[in-house]
Amino acid sequence: MWRELAPVGRSAETGGYRRYAWTPADADCRAWFQAEATARGLSYETDRNGNQWAWLGDPAAGDAVVTGSHLDSVPDGGAFDGPLGVVSAFAALDELKARGARCARPVAVVNFGDEEGARFGLACTGSRLTAGQLAPEAARELRDADGVTLARAMERAGYDPEAIGPDPERLARVGAFVELHVEQGRALADTPHPVGVASAIWPHGRWRFDFGGEANHAGTTRIADRRDPMLAYAHTVLAAREQAAAAGALATFGKVAVDPGGVNAIASRVRGWLDSRAPDEETLARVVTAVERAATGHARAEGVDVGVVRESFTPVVEFAHPLRDRIAARLGGAPVLPTGAGHDAGILAAAVPTAMLFVRNPTGVSHSPAEQATEDDCLAGVGALADVLEDLACR
Amino acid sequence: MWRELAPVGRSAETGGYRRYAWTPADADCRAWFQAEATARGLSYETDRNGNQWAWLGDPAAGDAVVTGSHLDSVPDGGAFDGPLGVVSAFAALDELKARGARCARPVAVVNFGDEEGARFGLACTGSRLTAGQLAPEAARELRDADGVTLARAMERAGYDPEAIGPDPERLARVGAFVELHVEQGRALADTPHPVGVASAIWPHGRWRFDFGGEANHAGTTRIADRRDPMLAYAHTVLAAREQAAAAGALATFGKVAVDPGGVNAIASRVRGWLDSRAPDEETLARVVTAVERAATGHARAEGVDVGVVRESFTPVVEFAHPLRDRIAARLGGAPVLPTGAGHDAGILAAAVPTAMLFVRNPTGVSHSPAEQATEDDCLAGVGALADVLEDLACR
Repeated sequence: MWRELAPVGRSAETGGYRRYAWTPADADCRAWFQAEATARGLSYETDRNGNQWAWLGDPAAGDAVVTGSHLDSVPDGGAFDGPLGVVSAFAALDELKARGARCARPVAVVNFGDEEGARFGLACTGSRLTAGQLAPEAARELRDADGVTLARAMERAGYDPEAIGPDPERLARVGAFVELHVEQGRALADTPHPVGVASAIWPHGRWRFDFGGEANHAGTTRIADRRDPMLAYAHTVLAAREQAAAAGALATFGKVAVDPGGVNAIASRVRGWLDSRAPDEETLARVVTAVERAATGHARAEGVDVGVVRESFTPVVEFAHPLRDRIAARLGGAPVLPTGAGHDAGILAAAVPTAMLFVRNPTGVSHSPAEQATEDDCLAGVGALADVLEDLACR
Repeated sequence: MWRELAPVGRSAETGGYRRYAWTPADADCRAWFQAEATARGLSYETDRNGNQWAWLGDPAAGDAVVTGSHLDSVPDGGAFDGPLGVVSAFAALDELKARGARCARPVAVVNFGDEEGARFGLACTGSRLTAGQLAPEAARELRDADGVTLARAMERAGYDPEAIGPDPERLARVGAFVELHVEQGRALADTPHPVGVASAIWPHGRWRFDFGGEANHAGTTRIADRRDPMLAYAHTVLAAREQAAAAGALATFGKVAVDPGGVNAIASRVRGWLDSRAPDEETLARVVTAVERAATGHARAEGVDVGVVRESFTPVVEFAHPLRDRIAARLGGAPVLPTGAGHDAGILAAAVPTAMLFVRNPTGVSHSPAEQATEDDCLAGVGALADVLEDLACR
C-alpha cells in the first residue's frame, strides 16, 4: 500500500510532503483511498464534508467500529502523521480476514479531510463539520494564502460546498472510533512498548503578541531614545520557555513578523505567535497569564506597547475511560499517555466513544521529513489495531 | 519642488516611502530630477552607474563643487532622508541665482542611485561603483528578495548593466562634494543650531547570525528534547543591547527570518541580522566579538548551532578637516558632530574632499514615516548650503 502512496505530494527539494486540502496531491491521496477500498470489496462512499469511508458490513446496521485518520499533511510534513493511521486501518482489516474473524458489528475505515489545516488555517475541518463544531457558512469563507475560499477550492475539486455541514445521521452510525497515529514525542521511545493508548489531548491555544515601538535609524538613534519592540519580544520568548518549564507545560514562539524588517532600521512592530499547551486548562491559563505579564513588564521597560490576542483555543479532551481501559487491557498493559497534539479523534470524542493508539517514534520528530517509525513498530501497530477491532466488533 | 516629489512611491497604508532601486517609483524620482534640472537650464546627464547629474557651468572645466544626495528610500522611510539633500541642492542654486552670484567653478547637483540598498542589500551602490569600491561583476550579481539580479533590474529599467564600473574621469572633475542631510538623531535637537557639520562617520557593519536547530511539533516535543534556535536568538538580541550600551556603541536586530515559520512548529532555523556601529573600529570589534561569544554560549546551552557571517563593513570615515573647518567657520560656528549613518559622502570621502551638513531633526526619528524637519530649519539648511557653495565656487 505504501508504495503507491509514498510519492504523492512529496517535494523533491525537501523530501517533505505538501498534501493540502483540495489540491491535486489531495485528489491523488483520495483516489488511492478509493482504490484500496475497492480492491478489498469494501463499500465506498464520500460524505458531504469530503470525508471518505470504506465499509465492511452494512453501514445502516449502526453501532459501527470505525478506524482511520487523515491523508493530508503540514507543509513539508513527514510520511507517517495521518497516513500511518489509514494504511494501518486497511492492514488491520486484512489481518482480521487472515485470522478468519467474523464481525458482528460493521467496521469502517475513514479518511477525514483537511485535518492539518495547512491550507485554510483551521485544523480538523472535515471532522469538525461532520460533528457540528464548525458552521458551514464560516467554513465556506475560509481562505488560503492566495485568497481562494474553501468553497471555491471544493468546487474546483468537484465537490459541492453547499452540501457541507453537520451530519448527525452518519455520526449516529458510529459506535466507537479508534484512531492510530504515529507518536509525536519521545514518550514511548525509551520504553519497551511499540504501542501506547491515549489518555487525553492537552488543552491548547495560540496567542498573538503585538509589540509596537518606533521605527528609527539603527545607526543614529541613541539607546536612550529607542523604543525597540524586538527587545520586548526577546524577553517574552525567554519568559515563555521559563514559565512553561516551571509548570510542566509547553510554550513555543515559532513564527515572528517584523515591520519594517530592514537590517538598519529599529523595528516599529514585532508580532510573535505563542503556541502553548498544558496538562489541564488551569495550568495553561496560568502559564499564558504569566507570559502576558512578563511581556507587559518588559514592554513598559522598553517604552513599547503590547497587545495580546487569543487566536484559537481548544479545551482539554479526555478520551472515554471505559474504551481506553478496555483497549489498554486488550493490548496487555500498553502505556496510557496524554498528547499535546490535536486530532480528529479529539473532535469526535465529544459525540462518540473514542480512543487513540500511538506507534512509537524513535526520535520524537514530527511535522518534518525526518519523522519516522520502524517497520517492526508499524507492524506492531497494525497487530494492536486488529486486536482492538476484533475485540470491539468481532465477539 | 516638494509637491511633485511627495506622492512618488508613498504607501497609502503606512504613509512611508518605498522607493527602491530600479523600480517604477525610482523611475518617477529620476524623471522628477531630470525635469528640475531641465527647468533650470542645467545640463543633465546620467552616468553609466545610474547616478544623475545636473550641471551649472562646464563639467569639463574640472574642480567642480558638487552637492546632492539620493532619492531612494528604506522600506517605509521618511520624506527627508535623501530627498532633502537633492531638493536643497536645487534650492541653493536658485538662491545663488537670486543673490546674483557668479561662480568661477562649475557647480553640480547629483542624485546617487541606490543609496539605501533596500532592494539588493548593499548600501551606496551608485557611489561605490563610481568610486571603484564595488566590483561591477559583484554588483551585477546582487539579488533582490525575488531573486532578480541587479543586472536584470537595470536592464528592465532601460539601463545597460554591462557599462557599470569605476568612473575615475567623472570623479576627477569633482573638486569638492558637500552632502546636506536631515540629522538622524537628536544631536542638534536641544541646541539653538538648525544646521551642523559632520566630523566623521562611525565605522559600522552588518553581521548575519544563523541559528540552526531542529524543526519539531510544538505540541508534542518535550522541553528536554527541543533544539529551539528561537531561544538562542532571543538571548543574543538582549546580549547585543547590553554590550552596546556598556561600550557607548549601537547594536540593533531589526530583521529576522524563521524556518519553517509555523505557529505550531519549533523553528529549524532562525537568522537574525545585527547592525552595529561605534565611535572607533576597536570598540566596534569588541562589541561584535562579545555578541558572538554570547550567541555561541547560548546556542550551546540550547543544543543549537550558530554561524556568524560579516555581510558588510565600512571603516571609520574622517571628513577632510580643512573643508570641514572652512564650512563650520563660514556658517558662524555651527556644531561639528559625528554620525552613525553611512552616506554617499562617506564613499566619496576616500577620493574627494568631502563634507556634510546636517539639518536639525526635532525628534531624531529617521527611516520612518514620522521623520521630520521644520520648514524653518529646512530653509536654514538651504541658506547654509548656498553660503557654502558660494564660498567654495563663486569667489
